[in-house]
Amino acid sequence: MVKEAIYHIPDYPYVDPIDTSSLYFRLRAKKGDEIKRIAVHYGNKYLFSKSRHVIDLSFERSDGLFSYYSAIAPLDDRRIAYVFELVDRKGDSLFLTERGLTESYRFEDSYKDYFQFPYVHESDCVHVPSWVEGARFYQIFPDRFKMGNRDKDLTYVNMAWGASPERDSHAGGDLRGIIDSLDYIKEVGANAIYLTPIFLSGTNHKYDTLDYMKIDPQFGSEDDLRELIDKAHRKGMRIILDGVYNHMSFFSDKFQDVVENGYGSPYAKWFCLKGEKPSFLKRNYETFSSAAYMPKINVDNAEAEHYLQDVALHYLELGIDGWRLDVGDEISHRFWRRLHDIVKERFPEAILIGENWHVGPSFLRGDEFDGMMNYPLYYAMVDFIVAKCLSAKEMADRLNDIYLLYRKNVTKMMLNLIDSHDTARFITLAKGNVKALETAMAIIVFYPGMPCIYYGDEIPLEGEMDPDCRRCFPWEKASSISQHSKTVRSLLDLKSREPFRSGEFHATEKDGLLRLERRLGSEEAALEINMGKSPLSLDGKPLISNASKIDVLSEGEFAIRLG
Amino acid sequence: MVKEAIYHIPDYPYVDPIDTSSLYFRLRAKKGDEIKRIAVHYGNKYLFSKSRHVIDLSFERSDGLFSYYSAIAPLDDRRIAYVFELVDRKGDSLFLTERGLTESYRFEDSYKDYFQFPYVHESDCVHVPSWVEGARFYQIFPDRFKMGNRDKDLTYVNMAWGASPERDSHAGGDLRGIIDSLDYIKEVGANAIYLTPIFLSGTNHKYDTLDYMKIDPQFGSEDDLRELIDKAHRKGMRIILDGVYNHMSFFSDKFQDVVENGYGSPYAKWFCLKGEKPSFLKRNYETFSSAAYMPKINVDNAEAEHYLQDVALHYLELGIDGWRLDVGDEISHRFWRRLHDIVKERFPEAILIGENWHVGPSFLRGDEFDGMMNYPLYYAMVDFIVAKCLSAKEMADRLNDIYLLYRKNVTKMMLNLIDSHDTARFITLAKGNVKALETAMAIIVFYPGMPCIYYGDEIPLEGEMDPDCRRCFPWEKASSISQHSKTVRSLLDLKSREPFRSGEFHATEKDGLLRLERRLGSEEAALEINMGKSPLSLDGKPLISNASKIDVLSEGEFAIRLG
Repeated sequence: MVKEAIYHIPDYPYVDPIDTSSLYFRLRAKKGDEIKRIAVHYGNKYLFSKSRHVIDLSFERSDGLFSYYSAIAPLDDRRIAYVFELVDRKGDSLFLTERGLTESYRFEDSYKDYFQFPYVHESDCVHVPSWVEGARFYQIFPDRFKMGNRDKDLTYVNMAWGASPERDSHAGGDLRGIIDSLDYIKEVGANAIYLTPIFLSGTNHKYDTLDYMKIDPQFGSEDDLRELIDKAHRKGMRIILDGVYNHMSFFSDKFQDVVENGYGSPYAKWFCLKGEKPSFLKRNYETFSSAAYMPKINVDNAEAEHYLQDVALHYLELGIDGWRLDVGDEISHRFWRRLHDIVKERFPEAILIGENWHVGPSFLRGDEFDGMMNYPLYYAMVDFIVAKCLSAKEMADRLNDIYLLYRKNVTKMMLNLIDSHDTARFITLAKGNVKALETAMAIIVFYPGMPCIYYGDEIPLEGEMDPDCRRCFPWEKASSISQHSKTVRSLLDLKSREPFRSGEFHATEKDGLLRLERRLGSEEAALEINMGKSPLSLDGKPLISNASKIDVLSEGEFAIRLG
Repeated sequence: MVKEAIYHIPDYPYVDPIDTSSLYFRLRAKKGDEIKRIAVHYGNKYLFSKSRHVIDLSFERSDGLFSYYSAIAPLDDRRIAYVFELVDRKGDSLFLTERGLTESYRFEDSYKDYFQFPYVHESDCVHVPSWVEGARFYQIFPDRFKMGNRDKDLTYVNMAWGASPERDSHAGGDLRGIIDSLDYIKEVGANAIYLTPIFLSGTNHKYDTLDYMKIDPQFGSEDDLRELIDKAHRKGMRIILDGVYNHMSFFSDKFQDVVENGYGSPYAKWFCLKGEKPSFLKRNYETFSSAAYMPKINVDNAEAEHYLQDVALHYLELGIDGWRLDVGDEISHRFWRRLHDIVKERFPEAILIGENWHVGPSFLRGDEFDGMMNYPLYYAMVDFIVAKCLSAKEMADRLNDIYLLYRKNVTKMMLNLIDSHDTARFITLAKGNVKALETAMAIIVFYPGMPCIYYGDEIPLEGEMDPDCRRCFPWEKASSISQHSKTVRSLLDLKSREPFRSGEFHATEKDGLLRLERRLGSEEAALEINMGKSPLSLDGKPLISNASKIDVLSEGEFAIRLG
């Protein structure tokens, strides 16, 4: 065995309570290493030297270098000691404990160095709200989705619906437009909606909040929001809003008070000043990225923190089902831990999704975000389907790597997007190739977590990077049902049932084909993707496919089979 | 390069802000792998594709299989992206990013897969109270240390001072005895005291609390505690108490109310019942270990949690400098996170030390305990010095492994003990060999963290496992200064100065000799330990040593040199 490849830490995600009566164990070894058996000896830590359970770990998945073995152990005590045993082809054992690898092991002395998961607390398990397992998200950029209220003051609207959006365009979309479109969105196949910010702001995107407690009148009123939530709920749909807690607008009353009064302002400590008087031109204060109009909030200031907590709770009280949290990765862990605590105590079924374009294990231990926007998955899909710089094997490895990053229940709450208001549209990256878009959609439906499409992906709507990816929704094209929209619906519908909700996930490569599987008991589903040049014969007609022929999968085509 | 051995995660302790302007990076590789250079490219994540800093990682330490390379990077922005570059002997590079190892790298596209530490927040850094770096602890089991008040009701005393203690012996030691001994303790070389529990309880050890808000009258009153704290503080000494939050006494009013009223008791949810009426004989409730008289507290119950928080704050308000937290590993992370928050907000210089006999990375991220009792280090010393089942090389590896477990500033707050009320005395394990005991003491003085000796180790007092390790302090032997007590004093005194407070730590082996070093700028100190059979010549007289001859280190002897 290659000892350097063997890895386990007594921490998430290598040991992870699924609930108070089952504990997940993981061990990593070199891929291809001839290991006959890996077992975990486990049991009550106080009795471990005398009595133990033992179960075998089975192969879970592999990536380029490693194989990962795991088991979910049933618990009859919550205080767990454990020791791994690896048996090689010759029958020789290696033991892995806190002290590393040894060739023999005396269980009589194991209290000195067994690994432990000292107590499985309910409060340290990750609760997955029941609605999350079947959630299919539809992301909306409200200014561009639909104008529902034509009686409002329309003087701010400065572009014709359907024109090419500029950075400062206002098209007039609003909450009324979304309320009026709930049936449409449901018809697309989604049952949850994520709205980019809707609070008072000076821009069309509204990521520069002027007042968190006020719905921007361009979009409507708090009554409109309440109506949207109520109507959505009555249709079995969920609503999450975008919370921008990293920064607010330069022109907000609070920051303007600091501009005027400097350190004398009661809000001076709400921000990160680098000099007494903030100046837009000098940018002598911290900002989001380098955007002078977005001064960074100092969330470690107690007043600022409480204010933002109140904001989060206020809209949850109104009935929203959770928050997507903008620039979540640049806000302190302390802030998120406390917000998570406060939110979950009162709204245990609400969900908190952080924006983080990168890998973020420290945010996803179960006590900060519930999940994150899964940009690493997004990039993998772009690489595999669009850039074609990944082979099927490399893609399977990558999908497995991403899957292995977090605790099992956290993975169920990742928001798996194919594009967003911050990326070019997938269809545009794919140069209009609808099959590519549908293949990406098939992947996010198969991948554990919550698939999320971006308004118009069902048309499909085109769009280069911001601001072009925020085009007005082409309602004229939505009126007729296309082959593509049918495929989108069929794909999203899968997520409502097993094994897509909670089945085990596997990604493998065979003969150049990427194969994703979900399995729950006897319920099985498989997605096969051919990104290679050679066509592939299919055995019979699949349930869903974007293939041109019934029995052949050509380059860029996929097939989904059940059972 | 052996790719399977290369390891980094974008999480503690592989990336760790020391403060808001310096970030520690670590990368692991196979020991002996011929790597010419390891560098980290880092900088503002928004500008990373265009401009970066680059610094080399240097070899930090190694264990049996791996070498660890690290650097502390100065920051000019708090939002950090980073990519590692490893150059082999031939000059070929490997790059390590979120996607793993690649042979080439395009920094232009790095936003897709750079590692990031998205923002260095003050609140996510680990604050080390200034007194902690020079702290030398003296642990006291109060019933056995000194009887200071002879006017109290002595009817509970059931053993003669100096007799062999039984499980239920009461010898009469008290807080007055400790107050009267502060000068003695200071003379031993300690400047901090950790007291095992002093609250109302039915036993001599008082780990079965009857009333957390009352000092056990056997030990004194709250006034006595206040006097102890005040006098200690005036002498520059610190006091930490033992908080038993995992369980309370079966005979406490609260649990008795549950025994009587079952689920009807207002305290029913404070405990973990397995049946309506708790019965001592049936043990139908969760307990510490299998001790029926110690029912486990359900700290996830809000009332129980708030009660324990009030207890923690009450004694901090009285002036104690922190808590040692009993069975800390079996209490929920949520409880510790919240307690840490509440305590640190009001008492930022207080310290929270968890009891955990094992490796516990999930408790030591900086937001739960500050440090833990370092039992893995204890076992390493027993193995090396007493059992002699570790070579000097294996011991160096083990010390490095233990050092690498946690964040850099957390390591400074570990409580490094050589024995305790829960172990046999080190001197007894070593069959009376004073040199062995002194060698262990020398190690904990050199090891980063807070050395802690157990009352009487300076005599040295003998003692097998509990209850024998809780013997009465032999004051008659303390009156004269022995060679051993002089050595103890010299060793502990080292901790008050650099490089022992904050210097870099290294453990290596050379010619069978274990060598520990501390280094801060030009200040250097080295501890050499000879556990081999061949004597070793010394160059000149060391500063402190337990060697029989001036210029030779025989088996079981050590020498400390400065400069």
